[in-house]
Amino acid sequence: MPRAVAGPEIERLIQLLARLPGLGPRSARRAVLQLIKKREGLMAPLARALTDVLDKVVECKVCGNVDVCDPCTVCTDPVRDGRLLVVVSDVGDLWALERAGVLNARYHVLGGVLSPLDGVGPDDLNLSKLVARVVDQNVVEVILALGATVDGQTTAHYITDLLRDLPVRVTRLAQGVPVGGELDYLDEGTLSAAIRARTQM
Amino acid sequence: MPRAVAGPEIERLIQLLARLPGLGPRSARRAVLQLIKKREGLMAPLARALTDVLDKVVECKVCGNVDVCDPCTVCTDPVRDGRLLVVVSDVGDLWALERAGVLNARYHVLGGVLSPLDGVGPDDLNLSKLVARVVDQNVVEVILALGATVDGQTTAHYITDLLRDLPVRVTRLAQGVPVGGELDYLDEGTLSAAIRARTQM
Repeated sequence: MPRAVAGPEIERLIQLLARLPGLGPRSARRAVLQLIKKREGLMAPLARALTDVLDKVVECKVCGNVDVCDPCTVCTDPVRDGRLLVVVSDVGDLWALERAGVLNARYHVLGGVLSPLDGVGPDDLNLSKLVARVVDQNVVEVILALGATVDGQTTAHYITDLLRDLPVRVTRLAQGVPVGGELDYLDEGTLSAAIRARTQM
Repeated sequence: MPRAVAGPEIERLIQLLARLPGLGPRSARRAVLQLIKKREGLMAPLARALTDVLDKVVECKVCGNVDVCDPCTVCTDPVRDGRLLVVVSDVGDLWALERAGVLNARYHVLGGVLSPLDGVGPDDLNLSKLVARVVDQNVVEVILALGATVDGQTTAHYITDLLRDLPVRVTRLAQGVPVGGELDYLDEGTLSAAIRARTQM
């Protein structure tokens, strides 16, 4: 803006909201106007919710998930099958898999993937606890739900090596044509993987 | 989500953020993950900024703008030409005009436009103060910067009538081809308006 049209507090709120993924300066301004318009119905509850989460959020010491309790909601859920352990790189991936709703497992959040170029080595990831959990909790299968990127697959191979001598089955997500995907929009790598992993009708 | 993967505080924050314009449930989840990741750098300042604005935001009694002070930053800016008054329907329009940076005026925010269908009459708008300001502040021109909609133009005509007997020039924004606009994408109404209001080269 060429000149301030509102006090520094409002400008600062716009700037901070604009740093959220999915919002830019323009939509942050619209969001602030909406908040001011719905002061009691939206701005006050949002301020409370944010302060609440800020005060309470912790990293789960068992799995690396974030929650307001430690151990987290997933680790303490009595219905989940603790013998099935899903390894993900980030909390967002855990949430995404839970939305798919197909697993009844516990998780282990690495906090990233191995990336020599970015200086991320094994010691930077939540790996030692993973081995301890597999041993202590009688895990029978570890599903490596890591991205189909070079770094993701490097990490998958590293973890497979790490668990090689333990009595546990290590699997990874299938690669292939995404559901709803048109063949002529897919890259060659995905098509090759889908052909190699073809299944009987 | 089929099952809770995080405590109710985090779920509530996601739900509230999803109500902001430009964010949906999916991007609100990404935003919360980002906030948790940048706890000290983003979440804490955002919580403070939100509480700050919540505590301080007021409607300017002079012009209807929202700010943390009353009269607002625009009304108290000594450099602005108080004889030029721009009438807008909402605070967002004021901000948009300021971004254009072409005016050095004061504003008057109506808080909506006349809309018989939605039950918005003259008494629901910030109109009586407008007349008083034009008289008291020796305004020489009122620019009606209202939307080119039926309701916007109805409101413009209503205000023109209201100010008819006062020694003030009442103008409205030009209608025509938007800058960068291709003719064959424009509607007939805009093209007709642009032809009627054609200017000498």
